[in-house]
Amino acid sequence: MEPLFLCPLPPLDRNADQTLAVQLYRALLAAIRAGDLPGRLPSSRAAAKVLGVARNTVNAAYDLLAAEGAIAIRRGAAPTILSPAAPRPTPAARNDLPRLSGRGRAIASLGEDRDRPGPMAPGQPDPDLFPRDLWARLLRRAARLTSGAALGYRHYAGLPALRETLARRLAADRGMVVTADQILITPGAQASLTLLAMTLGDPGETALIEDPGYSGAKAAFRTAGLALHPLPVDTDGADCGQAPAARLIYLTPANQYPLGTRLSLARRAAVLAHARRHDAVIIEDDYDSEFLWHGRPIAAFQPEAPERIVTIGTAAKALAPGLRLGWIVAPPGLAPALAAAQRTLGLAANVHAQSALAALIEDGRYRAHLSRIAATYGERGRAFARALRAIPGVEVAEPSGGVQLAIRLTPGTEARAHTALIKAGFAPAALSTFCIGSGQEGLVAGFGDATPERIADFSAVLARALSC
Amino acid sequence: MEPLFLCPLPPLDRNADQTLAVQLYRALLAAIRAGDLPGRLPSSRAAAKVLGVARNTVNAAYDLLAAEGAIAIRRGAAPTILSPAAPRPTPAARNDLPRLSGRGRAIASLGEDRDRPGPMAPGQPDPDLFPRDLWARLLRRAARLTSGAALGYRHYAGLPALRETLARRLAADRGMVVTADQILITPGAQASLTLLAMTLGDPGETALIEDPGYSGAKAAFRTAGLALHPLPVDTDGADCGQAPAARLIYLTPANQYPLGTRLSLARRAAVLAHARRHDAVIIEDDYDSEFLWHGRPIAAFQPEAPERIVTIGTAAKALAPGLRLGWIVAPPGLAPALAAAQRTLGLAANVHAQSALAALIEDGRYRAHLSRIAATYGERGRAFARALRAIPGVEVAEPSGGVQLAIRLTPGTEARAHTALIKAGFAPAALSTFCIGSGQEGLVAGFGDATPERIADFSAVLARALSC
Repeated sequence: MEPLFLCPLPPLDRNADQTLAVQLYRALLAAIRAGDLPGRLPSSRAAAKVLGVARNTVNAAYDLLAAEGAIAIRRGAAPTILSPAAPRPTPAARNDLPRLSGRGRAIASLGEDRDRPGPMAPGQPDPDLFPRDLWARLLRRAARLTSGAALGYRHYAGLPALRETLARRLAADRGMVVTADQILITPGAQASLTLLAMTLGDPGETALIEDPGYSGAKAAFRTAGLALHPLPVDTDGADCGQAPAARLIYLTPANQYPLGTRLSLARRAAVLAHARRHDAVIIEDDYDSEFLWHGRPIAAFQPEAPERIVTIGTAAKALAPGLRLGWIVAPPGLAPALAAAQRTLGLAANVHAQSALAALIEDGRYRAHLSRIAATYGERGRAFARALRAIPGVEVAEPSGGVQLAIRLTPGTEARAHTALIKAGFAPAALSTFCIGSGQEGLVAGFGDATPERIADFSAVLARALSC
Repeated sequence: MEPLFLCPLPPLDRNADQTLAVQLYRALLAAIRAGDLPGRLPSSRAAAKVLGVARNTVNAAYDLLAAEGAIAIRRGAAPTILSPAAPRPTPAARNDLPRLSGRGRAIASLGEDRDRPGPMAPGQPDPDLFPRDLWARLLRRAARLTSGAALGYRHYAGLPALRETLARRLAADRGMVVTADQILITPGAQASLTLLAMTLGDPGETALIEDPGYSGAKAAFRTAGLALHPLPVDTDGADCGQAPAARLIYLTPANQYPLGTRLSLARRAAVLAHARRHDAVIIEDDYDSEFLWHGRPIAAFQPEAPERIVTIGTAAKALAPGLRLGWIVAPPGLAPALAAAQRTLGLAANVHAQSALAALIEDGRYRAHLSRIAATYGERGRAFARALRAIPGVEVAEPSGGVQLAIRLTPGTEARAHTALIKAGFAPAALSTFCIGSGQEGLVAGFGDATPERIADFSAVLARALSC
């Protein structure tokens, strides 16, 4: 008497995507693992009869089980179950689930606070300004034309076409001293910061950072185990007069994030002298200088010391964050090593998006797009600033770029202003959260999505909160 | 007498992309920085005359310089130069250029050896099998239809459409226990490994890894400061019988890289028991199980302990590396924290590629594509194995998947075989380089690009080298 299946098997489905043999294999494997089957399986003939399938189907399933090491098949005998059932986890073991490591928890907590979505959140470009149809055509063309080499691993640091056109553009429009082989294409500014933080500093070394300053940069440096030292920011930008020796100096020279000031020439010279004295690398985050809309074409910091300044840029604000496209301009001596490290960390960008951006820049439409969105953001930003300035207790500098505004508030009022706006459905950030140590009070609010109605609502809520 | 420009300025170009004002601003700024100008600039009237441009042009350039903090403008007086010239770096300072940190050099050196391109290099899919036109249509559609939210930062861990269809596919085709919220989309397997290594282990903790094993995983663990401990691999896969306590266990259960064996059920049970005993996380790298072509639909390891096994996958082999698309299936308890950490590290994938992949999977064409390429790679792999087996001193297992083959050689012959093939223009890897400590000898050669001619040439070179 042959053994029969002693456990219920799930019904086989002739219309399923998988063949009957695969379904049977899966069902038997699950039963074996669960310890639900005795020491042997029925012969393929018996099983086929019971299951109402062809004998070949059963044989195929048994072959799969044998290949898995779950059963042994000998000619003329019923297959023997070989593998012990997986030990059933005890309830205690089930509860003792793996967790992130200490470092992992820190890295995760640094990511939790970032970019809460919602109206008037800082750093959010307007998706309606993304040139959807044009990009669709460029992508289609890119997908058709991208070479086999580019589809592979070869151009991990970026497509040559994009690196070349970007180098020309950065030289022409930002005065940068750059050739294609100094450029690395990454999946965005945050990935660039990860790469630089992990490779330019060792754990325990110091990074200087503007205060208030960009939380994404702080998160990257902390993740890399670097100690942060704040640089105070005034109307001339960051001041490194009292700064200690450091390995890295992170700056947003063209449009300080989040205050919107620019680094004066004198301060640039001071930063450079400090960097040279301590052999530090300067990271220039050029995050939105592409569409500063004050009629001020700002010279990048990089040309003042191309051997020591690493500049990062992104297409997130000019086009869309979802493209996950950023770039690094590295000193010639650093670029090859950074490219190798980029490989280790897996920080590469999609080739079709790269190819589309190259085409957009090359034929001049990128520049035209930048002018268009700069005009729109300029209107929104100025309208927002006007409305805010009418509120007592509020101080706002004339915005000159970006898609957000720093709003200074009288000490003691930040918390209630922020709470009221969040309750009203807006998503500004509290200025103090951009600070290390003693915070300045205020709000950082986006205007990428600012309509006249939103501006009026936001201002009304803020005015009411401050008048309490 | 008004001051005149005392230094040569570059000629202004009326046909350039930048306005004359911007060109003049740039030229003056460079001259000020270089210390080439005296204390004052000529009046705008005088300068306009000398330069042959409109006075408004000069005024605009001066305004830019004033905004930069480089000069002070007072009504009726010649502008005063404010900023000190940047200190000219001494030759010594110029040579003292910044370098990568110690950790940075290590990370870079781990990336230098990887994926040397060339014929028959391991891990290289055939770009000619990429469905170029279909992908072009899907991308165009994706670019047109992707929502504003998806273009922003909101779906940083992956588009909901892709996470959902991928979860269904992995459940149906790989038997995995997974819902959309357990899935994170990343820019590829290496990025996934970086994320997991940085968050699941603390520096100094131990990761177990197959030996020989995947160098990308080793690089990620070393970058995260983890200690590696080798697990010997035999025909049943990795053996953790002698393994120490560990925080992470990295495995390629479906198709061991690079040996091509699969992890037997008994070994799976042993690994799981080891992981439970030490509260370790298992990383299952499912890198090419999607197109194993041995007629063996392999069950993933993950369903045996979905609370403890993290599975990573990639579209690099099935479609193309250049898409930079990978995924992580995390236990439900870990997924939200991993998504937050993904944000900190900047490891996000392009949304249009995600959307195109979702469409491809959803309508069944992905599965059809997998069948097609599995058939092609199967033919190439079997032909390659046949040719190699005819060579004395060579041992090759029947390939069952992937796009590369492990070739075992008699001890003492690896170096000369490898050298001869590299000299002949091929790019196989030496098997010993996949090993920690005492190496096994052999080659790992790709057949993604194998034509009958290449197979014949490769085999002839190898046979000649071994017969020396």
